[in-house]
Amino acid sequence: MNTQADFHTGADAALIEDLVMGNHILFNEKIVDAFGHLSVRHPNNPNHYLMSRHLAPGLVTAADVLTFDLDSNPVHDMGVRYYSERFIHGEIYKARPDVMAVVHCHASALIPFGSTRTGLRPIYHMSGFLGCGCAQFNIADTAGKTDMLIRDPSRAKSLAAALGDKSIVLMRGHGATVIGNAIRQVVYRSVYATMNAQLQLEAIRLGEPMYLDEEEAELAAQSNDKSLDRAWNLWKREAQS
Amino acid sequence: MNTQADFHTGADAALIEDLVMGNHILFNEKIVDAFGHLSVRHPNNPNHYLMSRHLAPGLVTAADVLTFDLDSNPVHDMGVRYYSERFIHGEIYKARPDVMAVVHCHASALIPFGSTRTGLRPIYHMSGFLGCGCAQFNIADTAGKTDMLIRDPSRAKSLAAALGDKSIVLMRGHGATVIGNAIRQVVYRSVYATMNAQLQLEAIRLGEPMYLDEEEAELAAQSNDKSLDRAWNLWKREAQS
Amino acid sequence: MNTQADFHTGADAALIEDLVMGNHILFNEKIVDAFGHLSVRHPNNPNHYLMSRHLAPGLVTAADVLTFDLDSNPVHDMGVRYYSERFIHGEIYKARPDVMAVVHCHASALIPFGSTRTGLRPIYHMSGFLGCGCAQFNIADTAGKTDMLIRDPSRAKSLAAALGDKSIVLMRGHGATVIGNAIRQVVYRSVYATMNAQLQLEAIRLGEPMYLDEEEAELAAQSNDKSLDRAWNLWKREAQS
Amino acid sequence: MNTQADFHTGADAALIEDLVMGNHILFNEKIVDAFGHLSVRHPNNPNHYLMSRHLAPGLVTAADVLTFDLDSNPVHDMGVRYYSERFIHGEIYKARPDVMAVVHCHASALIPFGSTRTGLRPIYHMSGFLGCGCAQFNIADTAGKTDMLIRDPSRAKSLAAALGDKSIVLMRGHGATVIGNAIRQVVYRSVYATMNAQLQLEAIRLGEPMYLDEEEAELAAQSNDKSLDRAWNLWKREAQS
Repeated sequence: MNTQADFHTGADAALIEDLVMGNHILFNEKIVDAFGHLSVRHPNNPNHYLMSRHLAPGLVTAADVLTFDLDSNPVHDMGVRYYSERFIHGEIYKARPDVMAVVHCHASALIPFGSTRTGLRPIYHMSGFLGCGCAQFNIADTAGKTDMLIRDPSRAKSLAAALGDKSIVLMRGHGATVIGNAIRQVVYRSVYATMNAQLQLEAIRLGEPMYLDEEEAELAAQSNDKSLDRAWNLWKREAQS
Repeated sequence: MNTQADFHTGADAALIEDLVMGNHILFNEKIVDAFGHLSVRHPNNPNHYLMSRHLAPGLVTAADVLTFDLDSNPVHDMGVRYYSERFIHGEIYKARPDVMAVVHCHASALIPFGSTRTGLRPIYHMSGFLGCGCAQFNIADTAGKTDMLIRDPSRAKSLAAALGDKSIVLMRGHGATVIGNAIRQVVYRSVYATMNAQLQLEAIRLGEPMYLDEEEAELAAQSNDKSLDRAWNLWKREAQS
Repeated sequence: MNTQADFHTGADAALIEDLVMGNHILFNEKIVDAFGHLSVRHPNNPNHYLMSRHLAPGLVTAADVLTFDLDSNPVHDMGVRYYSERFIHGEIYKARPDVMAVVHCHASALIPFGSTRTGLRPIYHMSGFLGCGCAQFNIADTAGKTDMLIRDPSRAKSLAAALGDKSIVLMRGHGATVIGNAIRQVVYRSVYATMNAQLQLEAIRLGEPMYLDEEEAELAAQSNDKSLDRAWNLWKREAQS
Repeated sequence: MNTQADFHTGADAALIEDLVMGNHILFNEKIVDAFGHLSVRHPNNPNHYLMSRHLAPGLVTAADVLTFDLDSNPVHDMGVRYYSERFIHGEIYKARPDVMAVVHCHASALIPFGSTRTGLRPIYHMSGFLGCGCAQFNIADTAGKTDMLIRDPSRAKSLAAALGDKSIVLMRGHGATVIGNAIRQVVYRSVYATMNAQLQLEAIRLGEPMYLDEEEAELAAQSNDKSLDRAWNLWKREAQS
């Protein structure tokens, strides 16, 4: 499978390296386990995105990265298995031209919030991006009885609609999907949305938390976006050791 | 002890390798500590099963694997110590012809559910196999005052009766027993039953969770069964590193 | 300091090796951090015990082990610093001729129980030794305003009196002291008392746990004592890796 | 950047080595993640302090350490990026001549206490330094709508005023700042303030904890200060392995 890189139609090696590293970081930071996935929109073609074939994120290598169109069909069918929920990525890229990277995960701390439809609220500056709110999605509302998976474009369109203009959508009985303007931002958001969930759950045991208000959260999010590399460089070192 | 492999009466090396790896994965994923055990029904003889001699799962090697009959007697007595609770395995294989693999464990998150007789319910798709319900067993109901251990066929028969047609039985003041149609399925179920317990405990602090309903759970379980290797391959890599 | 072994007055190398390994296991299993200590009564002289000089348990080597009398004076003063709380050990060995090994620790899960005077009760068979009850000690009751440390024989006598015939005494605002009939038993009890505390704390969030009753606990404790090596051998491998 | 050591104007290599190690320990003990920082007042010039350039603490090397004046300007501008919140350090050194080292962190267990304005109280002797109380700071009280960061001297002066004569100040929606009379003391305090927060949160689920009273806490703090090296030497070994 080591010729797949030829099919990335111009995505450079550095981007693919970041995509692979992002997968490993998400695993090492316990945002994904064997399941979940990370994609990035193709830098030269907004109608394509890059993502691994069906594989645990912790095992992804550059040779596993493929290009998909926005209907989530592989541009070159390699005859391998693909993620059954890849439609999440394609439909969000269609609905949100500003989105350049997507994470789908089952991070532990997020599940209780999605299952009880409790909103995530920014408990500290690190998760300022939550200030604009957190979307909720219940697959049963639009698709009836299912296996909970976003395994076709129709379900994915409903999910993208639920996401709206937010940065994260919690999925009842399933997990969450996070979006960003780059791999490093979406990885950062995935890590700190999960951390925020843990902290929020603990804080409410002590009393009513004083969350960041909308303006504080927005200002904090802007500041954090200037330090994404500081986190990335540490996480990279940790994922490699 | 390196001649025991001769006594597996036809079980091939690949199955024994999976059994050893399953032991290591269960330890590495914190489903078992020094205690607990994993068995697999003999592929060529439904009246036999394979399991380690008395040993912490994390230390099991191929040379420690022995064949037992369904009364849980070793087919060839090696003069070594056997698990005192091996009857769990034999009696479940007798009562449930569909069961091909069994895990007995004391996973931390499961204990509070068994001790309070709180049912596990599927909080996300990963644990769809819980949708059919979760059995409860109190050894005191049938055996009176004991050391809590299933150390004879009679206690094991009661446990198998309590399990019924479920995939997991919680044992008051003791642990849990999980069944599956293969090593990879029973390991998967043990990991995600434990994860479900953690998430359910957290979720109820936020409100009443919207669990998967029976149909959703059944559909999710069917989907998960198609991706067991994705998890297994990651867990294997982790257990080996 | 490599001549200290000469001063163990007959304790053989295997016992000292177990004492060193016990220190490392307690650290690796998170029962002690930089603080806490483990001692063993001298096998040939019941009026002596063996323990490290003042050092984090995780760093103890055979060369650090010294012999103390039951007034907790070093038999041969090596001119090094000793644990300020060594009197815990001496006074318990005086008061309890059946005790052959002692652990003093600040294990996280035990602190909330001591600070609220909540009793530990056996939530599963692994901690059957808790069935006879758990002693509580508040240094302020007998010593008034202190730094909480058992830094003289008088405080230690009060602690030993509080321990009575139990296997563990929780110390308000401080930690716990655990006793056993051998190094392997006291290490086992320290690990599972801590685990029991974690599980009990989680269980009461679900409802009133059905604890083991006194007879069940006693029977379970007897069974567990036959499998101490199974845990020890695993913990040893983990502490060494 | 390997000529920066020339600019430390007399701080010796051992102190810089401790500063680097303190950074690594704080990361390894999970007090800081990619964010947070540690400084030490210059031993020869009380109007200077030493701290890393803008970098994750876990990645800091001796070559990254720079000297700042108490207005938090680098004494020699290296043309690199500096921590945006370095003013925390300068203003505390101005306001508190007794302070020789400062940690700013976002340790998980501390966030819920700051966000609910719940005071930390010493639950065991290890955190006796909390007996004098714990300060609270809400940036909104003095600076209005912000990104929560102490990114200018004015905000830092308010923080220093809130700290007063305490050893720790919790910062709403942000983190905490801890002070000490040396690197080893401030690292010790950061670790055990965080541990105390975890234990206090667990304890209140069981009942009203019997905290150390003021006198006990003060005596305990004095005792602990004599054993800082015992913890440091262990943490150092762990951070290096």
